Amino acid sequence: MKSYRKELWFETPGRRAFLNITSQVEAALKESGVQEGLALVNAMHITASVFINDDEQGLHHDFGKWLEQLAPFDADPNHYHHNRTGEDNADAHMKRQIMGREVVVAITAGKLDFGPWERIFYGEFDGCRRKRVLIKIIGE
Amino acid sequence: MKSYRKELWFETPGRRAFLNITSQVEAALKESGVQEGLALVNAMHITASVFINDDEQGLHHDFGKWLEQLAPFDADPNHYHHNRTGEDNADAHMKRQIMGREVVVAITAGKLDFGPWERIFYGEFDGCRRKRVLIKIIGE
Amino acid sequence: MKSYRKELWFETPGRRAFLNITSQVEAALKESGVQEGLALVNAMHITASVFINDDEQGLHHDFGKWLEQLAPFDADPNHYHHNRTGEDNADAHMKRQIMGREVVVAITAGKLDFGPWERIFYGEFDGCRRKRVLIKIIGE
Repeated sequence: MKSYRKELWFETPGRRAFLNITSQVEAALKESGVQEGLALVNAMHITASVFINDDEQGLHHDFGKWLEQLAPFDADPNHYHHNRTGEDNADAHMKRQIMGREVVVAITAGKLDFGPWERIFYGEFDGCRRKRVLIKIIGE
Repeated sequence: MKSYRKELWFETPGRRAFLNITSQVEAALKESGVQEGLALVNAMHITASVFINDDEQGLHHDFGKWLEQLAPFDADPNHYHHNRTGEDNADAHMKRQIMGREVVVAITAGKLDFGPWERIFYGEFDGCRRKRVLIKIIGE
Repeated sequence: MKSYRKELWFETPGRRAFLNITSQVEAALKESGVQEGLALVNAMHITASVFINDDEQGLHHDFGKWLEQLAPFDADPNHYHHNRTGEDNADAHMKRQIMGREVVVAITAGKLDFGPWERIFYGEFDGCRRKRVLIKIIGE
């Protein structure tokens, strides 16, 4: 069994961002030499997500508005107790639960085994900080 | 390490459906010959889910109503910008994030290693189209 | 390829609880002897979650309040049809979908390959019953 590990680093200029990282995961897969196996791609930070969906700007706008409705930003420590720690990012911890921490992708014949529209995104909900995504590939 | 790949195809007659696919995943596991390992089961389309929950019709009714409240269908492109592309399925992309893209299931002694009520479902949120689920099994 | 399986048992005194199980997963990893691979940790019950987030009491309070808003407890079988079965836990099935069934964690050099704040939690939404979490580790 082979295994391969790689970190991707991000620092988004705004609080929220959706970045297509598919080609970076494909590059890691090529470096791994794995032909059949599984690729785990996860946010290493708890106010960020890795998810698979459509690379369409209108949808990303909709995701942003929708997440703000489901888990609104509110720095007031009376609203979110987490913000009593001095942080203002309780909402980001919730947005990340909706969008998910990780994806596991099948590797078949040396490629990410994807449907026609599947793309991997890094979802940032508390940006302006350096953060990491982990890629771990196992197989042979 | 063994690996095995199988696609399941679906075309649901209505917009929304929850289909119990547990026996189809069990059949794939038997075909794979894997005794110890992991099974990844994922929707290959971004307006559909694979998830594990209860095979109970009342609960599926509740899931449908609840998802409609959290991410209502609205074809109006002023409501969801994604629908400016000519699609009307922005809500389906959101429902799929709540219910999830994939499950990873442990394989022990040649069987899906499940608790008493765990069953695997295909969740369709934009039906009347041919769509696929991927099963990828690795182990030995 | 090595594989290792372990169950953790819980019976929480209240309906809802978030328990940090990171050290128990680390102990299982040590027992497995796996140096490079993947660890799957999943709830074996469909009204409970396993998720990764912050070990901060204020945040857990916020998660509880937020989940109650998104999927309120209501024993009335006219509100949730699932409760016509005699259960009163339809809301718990929904809360578990938001928080997720499982996490997959990379194993690198014999350790859980985590970012600085990642901790694994068991999330209980219908407690006062004996329930299990499954840890399945594969690798070498």
